[in-house]
This record gives sequence, structure tokens and C-alpha cells, in this order.
Amino acid sequence: MEALKSSERELLKAFEAGEARALARAISWVENARPGFEGLLTALHDRVGRAHRIGITGPPGAGKSTLIYALAKVVRKDGERVGVVAVDPTSPFTGGALLGDRIRMTGTAGDDGVFIRSMASRGSQGGLATTTREVADLMDAYGFERVVVETVGVGQSELEIAEASDTTVVVLTPESGDSIQAMKAGLMEIADIFVVNKADRPEAARAAGELKTILRLRRGQVFDRVPAHHGVDLTELAKRRAAKPQATGDAGQPAEDEGPARWEIPVLLTVGHDGDGVPELVETLDAHYAWLKQTGELAKRRRERLLERVRAVVDRGLRTRVWRDGDGEALLDAARADLESGRRTPYDVAAEILKETSGR
Amino acid sequence: MEALKSSERELLKAFEAGEARALARAISWVENARPGFEGLLTALHDRVGRAHRIGITGPPGAGKSTLIYALAKVVRKDGERVGVVAVDPTSPFTGGALLGDRIRMTGTAGDDGVFIRSMASRGSQGGLATTTREVADLMDAYGFERVVVETVGVGQSELEIAEASDTTVVVLTPESGDSIQAMKAGLMEIADIFVVNKADRPEAARAAGELKTILRLRRGQVFDRVPAHHGVDLTELAKRRAAKPQATGDAGQPAEDEGPARWEIPVLLTVGHDGDGVPELVETLDAHYAWLKQTGELAKRRRERLLERVRAVVDRGLRTRVWRDGDGEALLDAARADLESGRRTPYDVAAEILKETSGR
Repeated sequence: MEALKSSERELLKAFEAGEARALARAISWVENARPGFEGLLTALHDRVGRAHRIGITGPPGAGKSTLIYALAKVVRKDGERVGVVAVDPTSPFTGGALLGDRIRMTGTAGDDGVFIRSMASRGSQGGLATTTREVADLMDAYGFERVVVETVGVGQSELEIAEASDTTVVVLTPESGDSIQAMKAGLMEIADIFVVNKADRPEAARAAGELKTILRLRRGQVFDRVPAHHGVDLTELAKRRAAKPQATGDAGQPAEDEGPARWEIPVLLTVGHDGDGVPELVETLDAHYAWLKQTGELAKRRRERLLERVRAVVDRGLRTRVWRDGDGEALLDAARADLESGRRTPYDVAAEILKETSGR
Repeated sequence: MEALKSSERELLKAFEAGEARALARAISWVENARPGFEGLLTALHDRVGRAHRIGITGPPGAGKSTLIYALAKVVRKDGERVGVVAVDPTSPFTGGALLGDRIRMTGTAGDDGVFIRSMASRGSQGGLATTTREVADLMDAYGFERVVVETVGVGQSELEIAEASDTTVVVLTPESGDSIQAMKAGLMEIADIFVVNKADRPEAARAAGELKTILRLRRGQVFDRVPAHHGVDLTELAKRRAAKPQATGDAGQPAEDEGPARWEIPVLLTVGHDGDGVPELVETLDAHYAWLKQTGELAKRRRERLLERVRAVVDRGLRTRVWRDGDGEALLDAARADLESGRRTPYDVAAEILKETSGR
């Protein structure tokens, strides 16, 4: 790791002094992978880990941005500061300006306790997921009590966001089929909290009921394949615990005499645009965070994340070394005619580049 | 590139003889990155390039799988063979079995002219996009006239699929807001053909009209920023061409005296479940393929893909070398305690792994 240059030391000082402009500059630095950005992240590393990382995901049109806005308003009342990273290309935070419907952050605009940054989701060569995590790190290091990452919940990106979050909230609408789609898309596996937003629509209660049913059914399925843990078959234990009467919608309670407690995934109803149900969402987020701490799950998730970060930074470094700093592009260019004529295959050329750009 | 082992030569022989089981085995081989898979792809490389590669994308619930099924039925009548790769986790091809609603391929089941393979979209370490392209290559090399890749169109994956396709079809429903969401999600940039599916709903005509309007508006925008080409400002030329009366919905025609012709993006109406409009979709696919060939765009897209493939194979090779064949995991494991205690940062550890696992 190279030593920081004086311009970097200055930025770091301003950042640590809590200047919002320094945060914005640091984020751009990291987003654009400007030389020295890993040194900056290294220098800030021991300030990271104090924020509650919240991932909010769900299909386009579920009202995620509006809900995040409402959430920010609620926690601001308690003096908390919130950082938001929007990765969803359909988010009004990100792309809405195109249509002129960018959410007006009334009540938060000009409030330096709320900081929103949208990520360019196209063509991020360094890996969007890793960069997003690093931007969240910066917000955490800066001192935000909550860092929210918004992503669209279809495909792969939401899994990556779940891996990077302490708490993952899946937001759906009351529309028929939303919960079925969520299930197919693998959102059941990643949700710590479900929210049925736009709950002023008449079908909301039915949609929430449907979700709870699916969750109950799945719980049964999951127990059929609880793996042996330290040689002990936990399936029976898990089934016994599931049989205990426990209201769906309540936060799980640690039951220390029985081993690690499960978190009962709640289904909440909210109306993002007028804030109904949002204080309850904040309470549930806090309950989940407390549960994570009590059970040791938070420390475990964060340890796993450290390892994942190392892997991602190594992979980025490998690519940078070959394509940006090394001869990769020149070798590819030299092979271009042979590739296009079919004299060589992409696999031959790749093998050559691998051989030439490394010591082995 | 290592020489093929005898088991690989045998597979290759069966593959080239057109045995469906050999195709299935080759796909598994590539999907699981079993040793020798790149040798297999190299050996088949000069059989690749005869199929029309079609990407079909759109939001969950747009009916993409049903439409692909209908499309397969139409082209089978002409004796064509179709390979389908489903990457969409919400696709009935992929995840539908969970709910018991896997599409019955009546009329195609047991028909070896249609081959469907769904990709596990989670945890593909080698990079799902590259593996998907390689599976499509295998289907192409096997001799399918059309290879269809189905992906869910929100997020990043659909851009990757568009890069891998000759023709990209974006499928929407008549639902209000679908076209707006598509626009925000960047689907306008990647579509060669738009399909409003479920067109038996009353709002279909309105939805198609909305899409056409957006396409016209965007065409204007695009012309405002046509880049200079070989020092010639094409903006005026592009505007003149746009002013020519040309019915929306028609395939573009090459106008050789004016330089490269544009493709006029058509908006089609289909009803996947009864096949309405699907023959017209097939005709339009053929028209686009003909246009790609006539204008040289096909050769250009495929040349670019060769270069991208080299990059992807190199990146995969770099990761494999460090994490599977090299000391990456061992070094990470040795650093684990220091990482968890905070004595070292992920960036320090990554720098060490990069240093130790390469010659420099």
C-alpha cells in the first residue's frame, strides 16, 4: 500500500473533520478508482463498522425511493444521520431526472444529515458491487448512523447487496403476483424484513397475508434440510422451535438455552408517500440490529464481509494489472487480425495474455 | 491450451455427430468449468457463428418464456432447430418448478429440435455472463439455427445479454408504466425490437403507441449528439434521414448511397399463449438479421464480441490462478485472525495476495 500524498492527507483531514464536501470528493475518488483510492480506504478502515447497513430492494415501481425518503425523515427527528447509496437504475434518485420526476427531498434538502449518492450502474469496470460497498464504507466512516443501499430486486444485484448489508428489507406492492415473483426471484432467501408498500390500496392486507403464508410454508421446507451442525442434527430442534406459538410480525427473541435464536421475518405495511407505518419499520430495523448484536450474527456477517472484500480487491487488482497497467490491451490489439480472420481463437489469445502478463 | 484427453475427444466426436446427449454433457462441462472445458470450446470454435443469436429480455411477468415457447413452435414448422438458454431467475424455465407451474412444452417436448437449458444464476464464480455466452456457443456449434437467451430485464444482466446477441428483443406488457420503467432501466438503448406481449388486453394499443412516441422522442435526442465520424459531423445527415417518411413498425432498409442505414426499431404486438403475432415476430427477427448482414453490422458486432470474450477469459483465468490453483485461499486464511481483530485491513491483505501469487 503506497503512502498517502499530501492532497490525499488533506482530503482525509477534511473528511475526518466532518466536511460534507470532503465526503463527496472521497466518494468520487473511489467511484472513479483514481490512483490512491485504496490508500484512502485503508486509512479510513478503522472508522468503518459503526453504521447500521440497511439494504432495501424490490421490484421497480415498489416505491423504494419514496420509502427511503420517509425513513430518512423519521430518523432525522431523532438526530440520526443517514447516507443513501442508490444502485437501482430505475430509481428516481438515479434515473428519474430524465423524466423530471426526481423526488423532491422536501424536509431533507439542504439538511446535511441526509446524503444521497446514486451510482452509475453501467460500465463500472472495477465491479459495481465492490465500489458500492466502498462508498457505503465511506458513509459509515464519515459517521452516518445508518447507511441505506437501494437496489432493484430482480437478478443478481440484490443478492450482492444482501451480502453487504446487516439488514435486508424487501419492498413489494400489494399487487397480485408480487409475492410469487419475489419468491421465484429468490427474494425470500435474502429478506430480513418484508414491507408491503402502497398499503393504502385495498389489496394490501391480502398481499401481506399471502406473504406470511409463503413464509410459513417455506419455514417448513427449510427445516427439512437443516444441515448437521458440529455433528448434531438440528432438524428436530428447529421444528420444535417453529412449533412454539410466535406471532408472525414479531421480532425474534434470542433463546439462549436453546442455541442461536432464529429471526422471525416480519411483514410490515407502509405507505411511503405519507409515512404511514414507517416509524414501525424503523423500530423493526432497530430490533433486527439488536438481534444481530445479541446473537453474534452481526460480528459473523461482518467477518464474512471482510473476507469477501479481500477477494474482490484482489480480483480488481488482477484486472487492473493486466488491462490498465500491463500489456493486456497491446497484446489483444496485436492478435486482433488473427482473431477476426479465425486463425486464432479467443482461448488461444487469452492464454497468451495470461502467460505474458504474469511471471509464470 | 492443453491437448484434449481421450474422454474429451470422444465427447467432441459425439457432439459433432449431433448427439443430443453430447450437447447436454458439453454444456454441463462448461457450466461447471471442469478442467479441459476451454480446450473443448477451442476445438469447437470454428463451428461457432452460424446461428442467429437472439436475446429476449423484459420485466418479470412479461411472458417471455411463453413467447419463446410460441416462437419455437413457429420456427419448428420450417424445420429450424432452436436452443434456449434461460438466465432469468423468475423464468418458469428456471425457477417455476418450485411452484409447479413449469411451462409444459407441449408440441416441443420430446422434440430434439428444441433444447432448453436454464442456468443457475446464483454463485457462478466464473462469471455468469461469460458462461452463458459459452453455452450459447455450444448450441451454435451444435447446429441450432437460432439460439435464444432469455434474461430478466432490470439491472445489469440485460446489457450483458444485449452485448452477446445479434438481435435483442425487449418484451413488455400493456400495463401502464411498463414503457416508462423500460426507459428508466435503459432498455431503450438495447432494444432492436420491442414486443408488447399479452396484447389481448384492451390497453395494448395504447401501450404500443406510448412506446412509439418515446422512441420518436428519443430518436430526436440521439441526433442531437451524433458524434463526429472520421471527422465528419453526421448530425445533419442523421436528421435528414430521420425526416424521411418511414412508417414506425417497418424494418429499416439499407440506403447505400447515404452511408450506413439505421434500423427503425419496430413495436410488435403478440399474445404469447395463443401465438398471435408470433409469425410476425419471426419475420421481423429475420428482417433484422438480414439488415445486420447487409450493413456489415453483424460482422462488426461479432468482432467486438471476440475481443470481449478474450477479456472475459483472461479475467476468469486470473481468478482461477489465484483462488483455485494458487495460494490465494491459504494466504487469506492465514490473514483471517488479523483481519478480524482489525490489525490488518482488507486492502493490506489483498496487496499481499497480489504480490505473493504473481511473479512481480
